[in-house]
Amino acid sequence: MTDTVISSATKEVKIGFDQPFVIIGERINPTGRKILAEEMKNGDYSRVESDALAQVAAGATMLDVNAGIPLADEPRILAESIKLVQSITDVPLSIDSSIVAALEAGLEVYEGKPLLNSVTGEDERLEAVLPLVKKYDCAVVAISNDEAGISENPDDRFVVAKKIVERAADYGIHYSNIVVDPLVMPVGAVNSAGKQVVHLVNRLREELKVNTTCGASNFSFGIPNRKGMDAHFLSMAIGAGMTSAITNPLHEEVMQGVMAGNVVMGHDANCAAWLKRYRQPAAEGEGAAGGRSGRRRRRSA
Amino acid sequence: MTDTVISSATKEVKIGFDQPFVIIGERINPTGRKILAEEMKNGDYSRVESDALAQVAAGATMLDVNAGIPLADEPRILAESIKLVQSITDVPLSIDSSIVAALEAGLEVYEGKPLLNSVTGEDERLEAVLPLVKKYDCAVVAISNDEAGISENPDDRFVVAKKIVERAADYGIHYSNIVVDPLVMPVGAVNSAGKQVVHLVNRLREELKVNTTCGASNFSFGIPNRKGMDAHFLSMAIGAGMTSAITNPLHEEVMQGVMAGNVVMGHDANCAAWLKRYRQPAAEGEGAAGGRSGRRRRRSA
Repeated sequence: MTDTVISSATKEVKIGFDQPFVIIGERINPTGRKILAEEMKNGDYSRVESDALAQVAAGATMLDVNAGIPLADEPRILAESIKLVQSITDVPLSIDSSIVAALEAGLEVYEGKPLLNSVTGEDERLEAVLPLVKKYDCAVVAISNDEAGISENPDDRFVVAKKIVERAADYGIHYSNIVVDPLVMPVGAVNSAGKQVVHLVNRLREELKVNTTCGASNFSFGIPNRKGMDAHFLSMAIGAGMTSAITNPLHEEVMQGVMAGNVVMGHDANCAAWLKRYRQPAAEGEGAAGGRSGRRRRRSA
Repeated sequence: MTDTVISSATKEVKIGFDQPFVIIGERINPTGRKILAEEMKNGDYSRVESDALAQVAAGATMLDVNAGIPLADEPRILAESIKLVQSITDVPLSIDSSIVAALEAGLEVYEGKPLLNSVTGEDERLEAVLPLVKKYDCAVVAISNDEAGISENPDDRFVVAKKIVERAADYGIHYSNIVVDPLVMPVGAVNSAGKQVVHLVNRLREELKVNTTCGASNFSFGIPNRKGMDAHFLSMAIGAGMTSAITNPLHEEVMQGVMAGNVVMGHDANCAAWLKRYRQPAAEGEGAAGGRSGRRRRRSA
C-alpha cells in the first residue's frame, strides 16, 4: 500500500496502490515537435502554456515538462517552462531531462515536491541524480535500463530496478519516493511484451513495494490502430497494478481506458468520474434491459 | 492449463487458459426482442439465419442459441434453430435454455460437442441437467447462484461454483467440461464489482482449475457509455484470466477490447489477428516516432 506523494504549491497528488491512476501529461516535450522546439528555443512559451491548459482540462493529474532541444540552453529553458506552467496550473509536475544540470535548474525553481524524471541503473547517472533527489526531497522515476542498455528479459530489468531502489536507500531515499518504469516493449516486435508488464508490475509491487509508471504508447509502436491499443494496454496495465503513466490525455481513447480501469479496480467511488464524463441529459440505453444476470433474475421470477 | 473442447461437426474450439479468448455471440435470443420472438414462434427463422451469419462474420468463435419465448413450444423451436444454424455456419454452439426439455431437444439434434447453457447450484437444476451433460458428453456453463439467489459476496458465489464442480464429479463429469460464470454485478450498484471478478476468476483458476465465462454487459448496466465500458471490462477480464464471454461481436468496441486483450496476453501470435483487422494500405502514424523508450534510446544514441 505504497503512496508516492507529489505536490505543487497548493495541490497534492498520490501515486498509490489504492489511488485512481495518475495520468502524467506528456505533451510538453519538444522531442519530435520541431515547431515547439523552435518556439521554446526563442523564448516563446505560448504553446507550452496552451498544452499545459489543454492537458489539465482533458484530465491530466500531473504534467511532464521536458525542454530537450539540441544545442539550446536546456537548464534555462526547462526552468522557465516550469515556472510558467506552475503559474497557470495547480497540478504537480514531473521535471524531465536527460541532462543533470537541467534537472537541478528545474528543482531550483519548482514550488512543491516534484517527480524527477529520471534516473537509470547506470552508475554515473545514479551518482549524479540520487543526491539531487535527497537534497530536494523529491520523488524520482527509475528507468530499468543500465550500462548494458535495455534487456529484453524482464527479470533483468527487475534486477536493475532493485539496484536503483537499493542504491537510493543508501542515500537515505525511501522506496515510496521511487516510481519504477519497467520499460514497455513494442508488442509488434516482442510478442510477450504485455505479459512482461503484468509480470514485472507484480514483482515490483510485491518485492520492492514501489509504484510504477510507463510510456504507454511504446507498446503499440509499429502496429495499426495505436490509440485503440494504447487505451486497452492502459486499462489492462491498471488491472495488473500499474499506478501511473506518462501519456497523452488529449486522446479520448486513452482517457476512456484510464477511467474504465479506475472503475473496474474500484478506484472511482460510485463511478463518479465516469458518470461526470459520460452522462448526458438523455443518454441512450441507460434504462434498457441489463445483461445476463438481469435477464436470469427476471426469468426465474 | 485447462482446455474445454467444444465442437461442431467439422470445427473444434478450445476455451482455455492459453487460448485466444472465446467470443460466444449472444444475439440469437428472443428475450427482449419482440420481433424476433414473434418470427421464431411462427417458424420464420430468417433473422436467426442473418444474426448467425453476421456474428460469425464479425468474429464470433461460437454462437449461443436461445429460444425462450413465453407460451411457445420452446423445445421444438430451439431444436429447429440449432439445426438451421448448424446448416449455415461451422462454429460450435451453446444451447441456451432455462427449460430442461428444451436443452435435451437441442442436444438431440446437435452435431458435435456443444456447450450446454446452463446449470446452477440449485439442487433440482443440478439433478436435471448434470445427467444430460454426462449422457451427451458435452460441456456446461455453471452459473454461481443457488436456491438463495445471487449472493453479493463473491466468496459465496465461489462456494456455489465449487459445489457444482463437485456434484458434476459425482456424475463422472470432468472439471474441464465445466465453464463457470461467476456472475458479474453491475458496477453502478456494486462498486467492487470489477475487483470481485478479478478475485473470483483467480480463485476459480487456481482452486478449481476451471474455465470461465460471463455476460459481460451486465457490468455496465445503469451507467453511460456502456459499449466503452464493456470493451474495457472485457480486456481487463481477459487480463485477469477470464477465458470466454457471451457478448455481442457486432459491437466494434467489444471486438476491439477482446482482440487487444489477446494481444496483451500474448494470445495473438505476431499480432496477426490485430493486424488483419486494423491494417490499412497506408495506415496513419505507423511509421511515426515511438513512445518513451524509443525516444530514450534515440537520445542516448
